[in-house]
Amino acid sequence: MTQTSFPSWPDVAADLIATAAGRAPADTVIRGGKWVNVHSREVLDGHDIAITAGRIACVVPDATYCTGPDTQVIEANGRYMIPGLCDAHMHIESGMLTPAEFARAVTPHGTTSMFTDPHEIANVLGLAGVRMMHDEALMQPVNIFTQMPSCAPSAPGLETTGHEITPDDVAEAMTWPGIIGLGEMMNFPGVAAADPKMLAEIAATQAAGKTVGGHYASPDLGPAFAAYVAGGPADDHEGTGEADAIARVRQGMRAMMRLGSAWYDVEKQITAITEKGLDPRNFILCTDDCHSGTLVNDGHMNRVLRHAIACGCDPLVALQMATINTATHFGLEREIGSLAPGRRADVILTSDLVTLPIELVIARGRIVAENGVSLAEFPHYDWPDTARNTVHLGHALTPDDFEIKAPDGANTARANIIGVVENQAPTKALKADLPVRDGLVDGTGDICQIALVERHRATGGVTNAFVSGFGYQGRMAMASTVAHDSHHMIVVGTDRAQMALAANRLAEVGGGITIFRDGQELALVELPIAGLMSDSPASDVAQAAERMMQAMRDCGCSLNNAYMQHSLLALVVIPELRISDKGLVDVRSFEPIPVLES
Amino acid sequence: MTQTSFPSWPDVAADLIATAAGRAPADTVIRGGKWVNVHSREVLDGHDIAITAGRIACVVPDATYCTGPDTQVIEANGRYMIPGLCDAHMHIESGMLTPAEFARAVTPHGTTSMFTDPHEIANVLGLAGVRMMHDEALMQPVNIFTQMPSCAPSAPGLETTGHEITPDDVAEAMTWPGIIGLGEMMNFPGVAAADPKMLAEIAATQAAGKTVGGHYASPDLGPAFAAYVAGGPADDHEGTGEADAIARVRQGMRAMMRLGSAWYDVEKQITAITEKGLDPRNFILCTDDCHSGTLVNDGHMNRVLRHAIACGCDPLVALQMATINTATHFGLEREIGSLAPGRRADVILTSDLVTLPIELVIARGRIVAENGVSLAEFPHYDWPDTARNTVHLGHALTPDDFEIKAPDGANTARANIIGVVENQAPTKALKADLPVRDGLVDGTGDICQIALVERHRATGGVTNAFVSGFGYQGRMAMASTVAHDSHHMIVVGTDRAQMALAANRLAEVGGGITIFRDGQELALVELPIAGLMSDSPASDVAQAAERMMQAMRDCGCSLNNAYMQHSLLALVVIPELRISDKGLVDVRSFEPIPVLES
Repeated sequence: MTQTSFPSWPDVAADLIATAAGRAPADTVIRGGKWVNVHSREVLDGHDIAITAGRIACVVPDATYCTGPDTQVIEANGRYMIPGLCDAHMHIESGMLTPAEFARAVTPHGTTSMFTDPHEIANVLGLAGVRMMHDEALMQPVNIFTQMPSCAPSAPGLETTGHEITPDDVAEAMTWPGIIGLGEMMNFPGVAAADPKMLAEIAATQAAGKTVGGHYASPDLGPAFAAYVAGGPADDHEGTGEADAIARVRQGMRAMMRLGSAWYDVEKQITAITEKGLDPRNFILCTDDCHSGTLVNDGHMNRVLRHAIACGCDPLVALQMATINTATHFGLEREIGSLAPGRRADVILTSDLVTLPIELVIARGRIVAENGVSLAEFPHYDWPDTARNTVHLGHALTPDDFEIKAPDGANTARANIIGVVENQAPTKALKADLPVRDGLVDGTGDICQIALVERHRATGGVTNAFVSGFGYQGRMAMASTVAHDSHHMIVVGTDRAQMALAANRLAEVGGGITIFRDGQELALVELPIAGLMSDSPASDVAQAAERMMQAMRDCGCSLNNAYMQHSLLALVVIPELRISDKGLVDVRSFEPIPVLES
Repeated sequence: MTQTSFPSWPDVAADLIATAAGRAPADTVIRGGKWVNVHSREVLDGHDIAITAGRIACVVPDATYCTGPDTQVIEANGRYMIPGLCDAHMHIESGMLTPAEFARAVTPHGTTSMFTDPHEIANVLGLAGVRMMHDEALMQPVNIFTQMPSCAPSAPGLETTGHEITPDDVAEAMTWPGIIGLGEMMNFPGVAAADPKMLAEIAATQAAGKTVGGHYASPDLGPAFAAYVAGGPADDHEGTGEADAIARVRQGMRAMMRLGSAWYDVEKQITAITEKGLDPRNFILCTDDCHSGTLVNDGHMNRVLRHAIACGCDPLVALQMATINTATHFGLEREIGSLAPGRRADVILTSDLVTLPIELVIARGRIVAENGVSLAEFPHYDWPDTARNTVHLGHALTPDDFEIKAPDGANTARANIIGVVENQAPTKALKADLPVRDGLVDGTGDICQIALVERHRATGGVTNAFVSGFGYQGRMAMASTVAHDSHHMIVVGTDRAQMALAANRLAEVGGGITIFRDGQELALVELPIAGLMSDSPASDVAQAAERMMQAMRDCGCSLNNAYMQHSLLALVVIPELRISDKGLVDVRSFEPIPVLES
């Protein structure tokens, strides 16, 4: 695969020196801006930036001496020159976009560096899928660093993924050029239990001198947390309150505070800085998960930065949290994250540090976006058939596949039900007595069926259970191959025939999201790459997703982030009840639980 | 050679986790201290530190749960627990001590990590000498990281060193376990001129992911500085004023502020933080050069820290500048520099953060010093004959070797004279008319002779010239094999017979410093290792050095730091006049200059 071979600092040091010394003209000079210096935390009026070979040669009061007749001069006209923004932890697949299209969508928002964990494709395609994401990432005109996924499966023994990630995979990935560290170590009970596989993955990462990403999704800050920290993860983005952020920083981790499409964890944690006055250097901003609609309508890291400032954070401190703090964390402080010699010339021009209009975006010395319009090429990887053909059902499904048989002779059955809670990732473990018709247990009221359809190995396996909270009415079903983290297919419906239609439809189009009512498809989001991503532009995907959400509302669903709730119902690491290919799982005890109580 | 194989974090992660989780007792618990947290910049009362396998397992309010019957309990009794101090840039040879004896001397002062550039031995013994220093460093119970010397010779073409360092040497050294980066890149004109050799050394270091040390000893902050920064050095300790420190930090370097035995560069620069309010994270404290007397009488990094605080710096900020800032700079923030899980258990107990009494020092989990007394073993490397026998004169010197012949028939001769300036490293280029007796030019008044005696290759070469400023009287001579940076032998004297005696004496003892008057040796400091270092304890060396300085005073010298001035007279990188084996050098133009004007 073609990879952009962006030259290293030493590759071009002689050229940078020649420009800085005035012996050779710069390729580009940004003239007359306010130098926002994230090293000293200052704004310095009246500076020029000279750029050569895609890197900053010098930042000086007057770069006339290194400006030649062929130098491209960009007039800052007194605007602020800030470093390109860094997203410290994110999943590209959450945008349902390929790396190229994700990059195209976020570049106009000023994001020029991303630390991406292709955890979703790892579950579908294993190491090969990670490599594809990694390779497309390296083809882009902006910086996409790949975190090697650590936990596929997320819940060993409780689910079967398409592929698994092993310590050997991790060790191999650490030799790839675009790998920056280990992706979030979600198996926090495993680390605290000194699980040899988890420790081997961490060790392989540390031996490579790279950064171990953390994920400690528990409010317990006692010995379990201490044990997790002792295991080696260097950051965590799962904190939700001030005490979480403070505990992580005190223990020598970096606290990543996220504002994603559905994560709002900045406001509660940033008071550690704004009110408690902690040294801000170990706090970092990230998105974790952004939907294409957020990217199209609201922004990306510029949105996070504006939000942090609106929460009372000093704009320069907030900017550090989206630039140099991130770069330092990943050992890249001499490569990205500031406007200083030798660094990649990733520069934003903005006329206000608070409202942060992203007026011009330069990445690696080239203009990539202006006034919200992307101006660069974002090359596509040649995704192979193995990536485009990942929905393998054992047979065409029929309504029978979704039957839940009642105990012999029963008129009602007591069922364990996944209770969706609005605006929360955790579900509730509910119980209800459900009606029996023709020997089959049916949903009732707001309780409908959910099925986990195996799609990686064509086993034909279907796990059936019940879910409440969506509010669906009429005869409908919705199916999605985005089904964290194992990414089988989740089908939720009020009617077994519609469920079969929806599942078969996704097999036909190679993955995505569909919704059927009364035998008609109301909306479809095609996600042909691994059943997770589209290689269409973000605006197209966002429109399709919006039609999908409208269709969900048309079927009676009034839940916020209803689609996200749907896609998380197989996430057998977040309490309380989830579904997997192995059955219903009680995530409080990490034990299987029967659908029907005996 | 035996090396301490201190286990890595992943080597012992399972043990740390077991302790933190409460499943296995800690080796050691420090109980009931104030946790000085350099990550959050806070003091947190009432904490315990549990240590296992030499690393911190956890820092918790109460470590009773991981304290077993065999756990060593150290009572902090409410004292402050601070991280072991880091010296970010230093030359062990400046103490005239081997790494082992240097470490023994500084450990009671709380220094547990040193970043040492064995630049002096590199000039004498080349890569082999660096390896010896590196190997002894790794044998110590504290952390001595080696910076690979970059500039031997310091002034190519203007001097002949015992050995030279090449880019291939640098690349090889980067594979050694104790190498942390490249030592100060002193050839700043070379970098600004894109000298291929200098850039190759920098590139080899960057390719290894290690830190390039800087040394920009010029007040010029214009294009020459910009060009140097563009070349890649990541820090600089040569700044002397606030503007220097600010310029370095703004340009993305770290400003190292030094307080050595003769360097006083903290007070003038620290105002960048205390008055200008810059983000302190990129400021670091170091010593650069400390004599054994300073170590014995005044301290080491504790002295620097006290001084920074006395200059008005917040004690916690100052502590960060001697711990985590340094660790972060060298990519070691998860290894040293803070009291957090996984890090080497380098802990100081002190009852006051301002006066900073160093009451107990723990390194890698073991008590190494208490109340000023070293309690650890500091093993000696088995220095080979090649290191112990380095003073090679071509022949026994006679007074004739020091004759400076006058032009035929002249009664006086106009000479270029090295003018020593009290309390300054730069010399002045002076001129004077000197008397001629028997066809030889003589010193007069405060002007006496200086000779550079070749001692690496037994060429028998002697370069003669004149120096002023020492104030010597009577018939005397002083000789030293510590003669930065090429470390030939410098002899300064009022009498050619005494000069010959002194030079021959150093050849006899294998190097060091001696002073003769009227045919008698007044004092001798034996430095048998490379003619630079003693493997005796610091107190012995300090006493010998004090006798030497008294002898200098007895000979009429009233200069501050007279011995240091002596040893720097061959440093052909600092203006204005110096002496080398190639002759007298004008360091303003980097050109040879005649001793006598024609």
